[in-house]
Amino acid sequence: MTTKPWDLPTACAKYSAAGVPGVGVWRQWLEGRELAESKKLLDDHGLTPVSLVRSGFYPGLTSEERQTSLDDNFRALDEAAAIGAPQVVLVCGAKPELSLIENRKQITDGIAACIDHAAKTGVKLSIEPLHPMYADCRSAVNTVGQCNDMIDQLGAEHVGIAVDVYHVWWDPQLEAELKRAGDRILGFHVCDWMTPTADMLNDRGLMGEGCIDNRGIRQMVENAGFNGWIEVEVFSTRHWARDMDEYLKDIIEAYRAEV
Amino acid sequence: MTTKPWDLPTACAKYSAAGVPGVGVWRQWLEGRELAESKKLLDDHGLTPVSLVRSGFYPGLTSEERQTSLDDNFRALDEAAAIGAPQVVLVCGAKPELSLIENRKQITDGIAACIDHAAKTGVKLSIEPLHPMYADCRSAVNTVGQCNDMIDQLGAEHVGIAVDVYHVWWDPQLEAELKRAGDRILGFHVCDWMTPTADMLNDRGLMGEGCIDNRGIRQMVENAGFNGWIEVEVFSTRHWARDMDEYLKDIIEAYRAEV
Repeated sequence: MTTKPWDLPTACAKYSAAGVPGVGVWRQWLEGRELAESKKLLDDHGLTPVSLVRSGFYPGLTSEERQTSLDDNFRALDEAAAIGAPQVVLVCGAKPELSLIENRKQITDGIAACIDHAAKTGVKLSIEPLHPMYADCRSAVNTVGQCNDMIDQLGAEHVGIAVDVYHVWWDPQLEAELKRAGDRILGFHVCDWMTPTADMLNDRGLMGEGCIDNRGIRQMVENAGFNGWIEVEVFSTRHWARDMDEYLKDIIEAYRAEV
Repeated sequence: MTTKPWDLPTACAKYSAAGVPGVGVWRQWLEGRELAESKKLLDDHGLTPVSLVRSGFYPGLTSEERQTSLDDNFRALDEAAAIGAPQVVLVCGAKPELSLIENRKQITDGIAACIDHAAKTGVKLSIEPLHPMYADCRSAVNTVGQCNDMIDQLGAEHVGIAVDVYHVWWDPQLEAELKRAGDRILGFHVCDWMTPTADMLNDRGLMGEGCIDNRGIRQMVENAGFNGWIEVEVFSTRHWARDMDEYLKDIIEAYRAEV
C-alpha cells in the first residue's frame, strides 16, 4: 500500500531489485489472479509475505451484516494461508450508530468467533489498535492497553497485536503496555506524523518527516521481546503522486536513517 | 467561542435573554476593554463566569520562549481573578521539534511554575487533556489518566482537570480515570464528534449530531463527584455560518435533550 500506484507484479520486481526482503500484502492486490499465482510471484522474487492486510470490521447493525463480516474474516485467513502470510491484520471496525461499548463488545465477540478458523489455518489474528481519531467509524480499538485487556480475555495462542507507530506514538502508557504485551506483538509498522496533518487518512509522512520517534518506539517493542519484521506503512497522496522509483529509494534511505 | 460571531456584549445580552446562567470566557473577547468593564457586563446580565479560556502552551524551543509563556500564564490568572472566573483552562501545548518526553516535562515544569501565582490569585489551573490527534502541536497531555499522574506529582490544591467529551470520549480508561480524578474535575465540556470529521479543529457537532454519549459521560463525571457547571463548547465553521439566534435555540434544545 505504501507504493500504491504499483500493482503486485511491479511491486515485487521493484522491491526485489532494491533488496527489500519482505512485504505486507493488501488484499486488493490479490484480486484478478489465483492465490497460488500471487504466492509464486512473491516466492520467485524472494519476498517473504509478512502479513495480509486487512480484515476485521466486526461491528454491524444487523446479524446479517455481522455474519458477512465473519465470512470475510474467514476468507482473509484462507487467503493468508494460501500465500504463506503468518498473520492477518485486523482493523476492527466501528459504527457511529452503535455505542462505544456495543462496538467494543461486537469486536471482541467477532474475534472470538474467528479463533477456530485461525487455529485451523495456522494464521494469527493481529489486532491493530487504531488512532483514537478513527474510533467513530474505523476501529473502536484504540490503544495497546486495550488490546492487552482483550487478549487477556481471548487468549494469546491465536491472537496478537500489530503496533503501528502512527496510531500509538502519543500514548503515555505505550512503553508499559508494550512491555505487558511482550510476545503478543506480531507486527511493527513505521511511518511518521505530519504537522500539520492535511488529511486524516492519507497524509502520513516518511520516517523523519514528522514528530514520531520511530527508533525510540522500535527500541520499546524490541525491549518487549519483538524480533519480527518491520513494515513501512505510509499512506500519502503526496508521495503517491511522485515518481515511484525515486520514492522507493527515499523509503529505504529513511528506514536506514530513522528506524 | 461556541457563538464565535458574537462579541462579549452581544453574547451577554443574548445568553441572558435565553436564560443561559453562565459562560466560559475566551480571552480574546476581553480585549479592547477594561477587565472591570467586562466583569460588569457579565454581572449586569447575571452571567456567572465559569472559566477563563485559555493559557498553557508551555513548551518552547528556548528559555525566552518558555518565559514568555509563563508571563502569559500569570496574566491569564490575573485576568481570571479580575472577572471572577474560578479557573483558567490550560491547553498545555507541544512543539513537534521537541520529543514527546521533553514536551511533557516542560508542561509539568510550566504548571509547577504557575502554582504560586495561582495560589496568590485564588484561581485554579485546570488541565484540559486534548485529543491525541493534537499531540504534535497543541497539547502533549492527552488523557485523563495522564492528568491524574501529573496532579499526583503537582498536588491537587491548585491544579485540576477540565474534561471535554470531544477529547476523551474514546478512552477505554475513561470511567476508571474519572473516578480516580474525583474532585480534581473542575470543568466539564460537551459537544459531539462528527462522522466524517471534515476538519480536525472546527468541525465539532452539537450534542446529538454525532457519536458521543454525552449523557453517559456526564453520569461518569457526576458519579466521580463533579457537581459544577456544564459548558457547551462547539467549534464549528458550519454552525458559525448560521443565523446565531436560531443556533442558540438549537444549542439549548440539544443540551436539554442530550446532556
